[in-house]
Amino acid sequence: MQLYCILPLVMASYKYKMTIAYDGTHYGGWQVQPNAPSIQALIEHALGVILRLPIPIIGSGRTDAGVHALGQIAHFVTDNPIDISKTIASLNGMLSDEIRILEIIEVPLNFHARYSALSKTYHYRLHLKKIPDPFNKHYAYHVPHPVDVDLLKEAASQFIGVHDFTSFANEASRGTAAKDAMRTLHRLDIVEEPGGVRLEFEGDGFLYKMVRNIVGTLLDICAGKIDKEQIPKIFSKKDRRLAGRTAPPHGLYLVAVKY
Amino acid sequence: MQLYCILPLVMASYKYKMTIAYDGTHYGGWQVQPNAPSIQALIEHALGVILRLPIPIIGSGRTDAGVHALGQIAHFVTDNPIDISKTIASLNGMLSDEIRILEIIEVPLNFHARYSALSKTYHYRLHLKKIPDPFNKHYAYHVPHPVDVDLLKEAASQFIGVHDFTSFANEASRGTAAKDAMRTLHRLDIVEEPGGVRLEFEGDGFLYKMVRNIVGTLLDICAGKIDKEQIPKIFSKKDRRLAGRTAPPHGLYLVAVKY
Repeated sequence: MQLYCILPLVMASYKYKMTIAYDGTHYGGWQVQPNAPSIQALIEHALGVILRLPIPIIGSGRTDAGVHALGQIAHFVTDNPIDISKTIASLNGMLSDEIRILEIIEVPLNFHARYSALSKTYHYRLHLKKIPDPFNKHYAYHVPHPVDVDLLKEAASQFIGVHDFTSFANEASRGTAAKDAMRTLHRLDIVEEPGGVRLEFEGDGFLYKMVRNIVGTLLDICAGKIDKEQIPKIFSKKDRRLAGRTAPPHGLYLVAVKY
Repeated sequence: MQLYCILPLVMASYKYKMTIAYDGTHYGGWQVQPNAPSIQALIEHALGVILRLPIPIIGSGRTDAGVHALGQIAHFVTDNPIDISKTIASLNGMLSDEIRILEIIEVPLNFHARYSALSKTYHYRLHLKKIPDPFNKHYAYHVPHPVDVDLLKEAASQFIGVHDFTSFANEASRGTAAKDAMRTLHRLDIVEEPGGVRLEFEGDGFLYKMVRNIVGTLLDICAGKIDKEQIPKIFSKKDRRLAGRTAPPHGLYLVAVKY
């Protein structure tokens, strides 16, 4: 009887960081989901075909159905180095042009798209014309009541800084990460743009639906449903029911992730 | 035998001017067409239902399939005065939100959406990023080669003024109006915008596909296919074949009509 000893070769590994833009209108969100095509699944499929083996990709975080991205980040690991510009061209050739791979760069093996992130920037676009512009249907939220931009700015300023954002997070993440709902919102700028305003959020991390719940609360303040003086109390009570509604997904953009 | 004399009553007439925005992506253009829904037909249908009789509407001019409008103008005549704000709300309620009636005002009976127009403004959006932004797919033309914006501006300046634009008009209007191809282009500004440039045309009238043919010629100049010194010769030869290609419809917007 002969014994064969199969020695594993010392395998090198290569890690890549990709920057992705997508129009989320027709997708079920970033994450692999049972009932609708997900951005992640489509990119994984294309990458698997190009590199001829299944390659999981890890995103910086989920985006919900209908949410857009200008700079989502994901990483993946390969055993062999890839030809970066050829891979970008092949991926963009295979994918719908609603999803674009903007950049791929090699990164150290200790880089992680989610855990290495230092901050994220989200924009939320409000369309404020009385009769909505047909071009914004899927790309900005048309607010059905007048919005006082000065009041919006005043109320928004109260969200900046370190807070326990439990009252502004929905179930999915409260269930899993309720212990740690402390987040730092570095800035929340209200920038006027043609036909409306853009709310720019930059923070060290965001709980599930946190941006959309803050936007919904600000709009409830502008509509006179919530008094802006109540915000400190809403923070301290840690009760989602005290904050405002969840603004719809199609106004939201994941703009950038900093590492 | 009795004779009945049916006397016509003296009927008053009321004329209205409507301002319309539309996303032309899913339509066969402004004009009633056999094989695709037209913006005009959809508005006429809605107006007919609301006012309970067929009302033809007359536009300031056609826009082709895929072309957008921020300020198309049309007029219509009624026997009885209409409730303007109610009519706007009802039309917008019946129409797809890809078509929005922005304004209706009463105008003198001698107003004509087409013949009273003094000037029109069109914008053409070029998307110039190497990897195209997914949000511009239907709303700006992604140019597949590098564009020298200074050269674009120099070449564009040669189109301003009074010219016989025969070389930049396609068949449909050359056949019908070849005698009168003199038009005045008041301005052709190249305005930089995020990710690209916008070409702003304002003139007293535009021949069929004239804006798209000028844009295509400018792009052929930037691609080195046509020398910008040839433009005066192309004008003087009155031959469409000497000018450049026709830029695609989805970058074009009818922005405003002045009366």
